[in-house]
Amino acid sequence: MLAVTSSLQTVLDVVGVFVFALSGALVAVRRGLDLFGVLVLSWVAGLGGGIIRDLFLGITPPVAVSDWRLLAAAVLAGALVFLLHGRWQEVAARHPDARWRRVSYAVRLLDAAGLALFAVSGALVALTADAGPLAATLIGGITGIGGGLLRDVLARQVPEVLQRELYAVPALAGAGLVVLFHHLGVLNPFTVWLAVGFVFVTRVVAVVLDLNAPRALSSGNQQGSEG
Amino acid sequence: MLAVTSSLQTVLDVVGVFVFALSGALVAVRRGLDLFGVLVLSWVAGLGGGIIRDLFLGITPPVAVSDWRLLAAAVLAGALVFLLHGRWQEVAARHPDARWRRVSYAVRLLDAAGLALFAVSGALVALTADAGPLAATLIGGITGIGGGLLRDVLARQVPEVLQRELYAVPALAGAGLVVLFHHLGVLNPFTVWLAVGFVFVTRVVAVVLDLNAPRALSSGNQQGSEG
Amino acid sequence: MLAVTSSLQTVLDVVGVFVFALSGALVAVRRGLDLFGVLVLSWVAGLGGGIIRDLFLGITPPVAVSDWRLLAAAVLAGALVFLLHGRWQEVAARHPDARWRRVSYAVRLLDAAGLALFAVSGALVALTADAGPLAATLIGGITGIGGGLLRDVLARQVPEVLQRELYAVPALAGAGLVVLFHHLGVLNPFTVWLAVGFVFVTRVVAVVLDLNAPRALSSGNQQGSEG
Repeated sequence: MLAVTSSLQTVLDVVGVFVFALSGALVAVRRGLDLFGVLVLSWVAGLGGGIIRDLFLGITPPVAVSDWRLLAAAVLAGALVFLLHGRWQEVAARHPDARWRRVSYAVRLLDAAGLALFAVSGALVALTADAGPLAATLIGGITGIGGGLLRDVLARQVPEVLQRELYAVPALAGAGLVVLFHHLGVLNPFTVWLAVGFVFVTRVVAVVLDLNAPRALSSGNQQGSEG
Repeated sequence: MLAVTSSLQTVLDVVGVFVFALSGALVAVRRGLDLFGVLVLSWVAGLGGGIIRDLFLGITPPVAVSDWRLLAAAVLAGALVFLLHGRWQEVAARHPDARWRRVSYAVRLLDAAGLALFAVSGALVALTADAGPLAATLIGGITGIGGGLLRDVLARQVPEVLQRELYAVPALAGAGLVVLFHHLGVLNPFTVWLAVGFVFVTRVVAVVLDLNAPRALSSGNQQGSEG
Repeated sequence: MLAVTSSLQTVLDVVGVFVFALSGALVAVRRGLDLFGVLVLSWVAGLGGGIIRDLFLGITPPVAVSDWRLLAAAVLAGALVFLLHGRWQEVAARHPDARWRRVSYAVRLLDAAGLALFAVSGALVALTADAGPLAATLIGGITGIGGGLLRDVLARQVPEVLQRELYAVPALAGAGLVVLFHHLGVLNPFTVWLAVGFVFVTRVVAVVLDLNAPRALSSGNQQGSEG
């Protein structure tokens, strides 16, 4: 039995859905989608990762379609962005040099928070379902990455996970930390939030500093599709 | 136990697969794909929604790969479009102002029929599998949307569900009607077809009238990718 | 009980993961992705097909996240491509007319090997899980196609399966051969490799000769998106 209560799990999931759904809604608004397009992308971004997690663990139907709180968090996030986006643009127009006014920047910060919450939540659910250490780590990482990935595929933009700053590594490391804490017998609310914070801070630092992993030397790089 | 026979369920599924597969085949022909590309997109569009439904409900293997009638409906639709498309183009060329001659319009009408049939079918299967009201409604909506979504992602066009006319709302409403009828004890073949008709008519009216939901005010709309 | 040992199954899977992961890594390098982007696309291409197979058969968690050998094969393939790609480009530059120097050509050959190995492996796993003949054939075909399809969707290029040479047909035929051999009672390591060879050779011949299936006559072909 895990030393983590189901209420902590619920908090991680609801907050994770909310921030990922905000990111999906912002992408949708930027693409000029209408209210329902915004809600669809909020739902996909907010709940996609958890759906993949549940399918991987044989939890059917996925919590994302049976727990009204997760649905409510996604819908609320979509509605808030839809209503307040115009106001944000007004304020942002008065601070043309501020980095936070750029939608793409806000999307990345929200995405980082969702990544952190879902990577940890995914690992916890996998451990609860008796997955082994490797599976729990990978499922945690995939849970963190999944929602943003589906959002970007639907919105037809390059997935964050293929962009150049560190993305999958913090998610996998955070899930791995949860598995490690579990095996050391020190998994508790404090260490869970420590793992969340670790993923978030690592990812934000990567975005802010534009930390890049090395690239392969190739004369063919970025020459577009040959296929 | 549901008051709906499995033969009605089969009719909904086979007809739904057929019309969605027609839509997939038309998209494929328009993209210049060959016979097998046409069959692949027919299969994906026709069977994708049901596969997602079955995975969400833990029905493995999905009916889409075990019931030959569904496969046959998809293959037949693909072959028909492949064989008759040239003839349609000839006739259409003689009526340059007719709306039905545009492939994108035909795709939307067929898609609307598939959306209606699968949203209702998805809700019925979910209720049969003892899903709760919320889960049955959402799974119905996702079943309706899924096939067209996968078709559009593979064909690299903007998913219908993110276009500007009402799309997800009729699907969710139709699935919700089925759940409501079930809880009121009035679920029977007549009310099932009523729900199908409701979704189809709502969606077709939205396409014909170009009904739009409101959009967020944003100076950044449609400015393309910033990321 | 199948007359095929689990060690043969493991060989098919590990080699299939490795070659598909090489294809994913090459696509990633060509797109100018960094080390982690390369590893992500390696993982998706190498393990995507097996994940779909396992979800279709209710095998949770998918072997792809619980068997370290599959993960190791994907990571090794990604790292090799990352390290050796520059050297390959140097050698290739000295043979400007050689067909193998083109990355897109190498991707297709590797993809053909993965297609063959996974189509056969998918059919075998499906038979082991007591799927019927139709389901085992389709699941085999989908397993073969899946990894390359996810790779191409994430990398935002036209999926191989929608390109003009034969692709899905050899995969389905190979899976069908396995099912046929099983029902004839002649399924053994020799016939398994025969099926793998059949898929690979058919696909390579299609690529080399640029074998096309017929296309529908259409004035609207390749006119791009109307939607």
